[in-house]
Amino acid sequence: MKTVELSIRSRNRCEMVDITDEIKNILCKQKINDAVITLFTPHTTAAITINENADPDVTTDMLYGLAKLAPQDPHYKHAEGNSAAHIKSSLIGISETLIVDGGHLLLGTWQGIYFCEFDGPRTRRIIINLSES
Amino acid sequence: MKTVELSIRSRNRCEMVDITDEIKNILCKQKINDAVITLFTPHTTAAITINENADPDVTTDMLYGLAKLAPQDPHYKHAEGNSAAHIKSSLIGISETLIVDGGHLLLGTWQGIYFCEFDGPRTRRIIINLSES
Amino acid sequence: MKTVELSIRSRNRCEMVDITDEIKNILCKQKINDAVITLFTPHTTAAITINENADPDVTTDMLYGLAKLAPQDPHYKHAEGNSAAHIKSSLIGISETLIVDGGHLLLGTWQGIYFCEFDGPRTRRIIINLSES
Repeated sequence: MKTVELSIRSRNRCEMVDITDEIKNILCKQKINDAVITLFTPHTTAAITINENADPDVTTDMLYGLAKLAPQDPHYKHAEGNSAAHIKSSLIGISETLIVDGGHLLLGTWQGIYFCEFDGPRTRRIIINLSES
Repeated sequence: MKTVELSIRSRNRCEMVDITDEIKNILCKQKINDAVITLFTPHTTAAITINENADPDVTTDMLYGLAKLAPQDPHYKHAEGNSAAHIKSSLIGISETLIVDGGHLLLGTWQGIYFCEFDGPRTRRIIINLSES
Repeated sequence: MKTVELSIRSRNRCEMVDITDEIKNILCKQKINDAVITLFTPHTTAAITINENADPDVTTDMLYGLAKLAPQDPHYKHAEGNSAAHIKSSLIGISETLIVDGGHLLLGTWQGIYFCEFDGPRTRRIIINLSES
């Protein structure tokens, strides 16, 4: 079992940052063969998800759809004004589990791994746990 | 650590397919005693979840509620017209983690495992990783 | 691999119960050094999430925001009247994965672990699987 860390910089208030290549590079460097990988971000206004990385319009639409379903609201009490970001974080979730089988990261043809920023821009951390069999 | 695969066929545009028995059969065949199981679907308009499988009205209501909170929208840019399905996929999530303890899959009395189709009908894959202690 | 259980009592219909200390106590008692922890609740109208535990207004706003995005609805068919709770359960998710590294539970500065009650008050179970390396 090994735990490594990735630092990324988001550039907008809300943004989906494709981290697929960074994760693949870590798996390659660590020479992972068969493992379950846990990605975990230690923040409360961010998330990690897996979705399409072929057409960039998909993530544009996802951020638009999330803004509609969890909008700003005058009844929110939290003084920082980012309650919608906290809600999006728990809806999408701050962790993802990946499977590596025979040295291959098992992702579908259209799947990419995204860090979701909901209250940026900020410097953010992603913790990666590699549990080999 | 072992990775096996399940293929299923969805029959509707949106559907929750109960895969509890298929997963239990795999665990039985593999003679799993103590393990953490990762279910992962390699698609971007589908998901996996655990919810009630006693009253079929529950999944009907869940699909209705999801359609209301992530509806079709004229502002979506993605040309395939399935942006709502991508959003539902990331809201519900494409993986689930299960615990097997002493040969028993630890599911609650009312819990079943569902493959969630949001852009069917299609043939879909579920990857199952078995990490025994 | 070890599986232990936690019992909690929710006090309201909808509530986020901070279980961070209970989880830390279990890890301490079990003398966990390096492990992946799976938290799993065997219920269909509850969930587990990780979010801010500094300002209590955050969880108030989260419950309010969730009630707005998955409201009661006259079209729901399930006779128990708790379909919104089933939807919230699958949106937030019934499990979380944690990483323990060198005896430290890797949580961010502002992160706490919450049991989410969406159809209480009830006595509820949380199953905790400890997979050490």
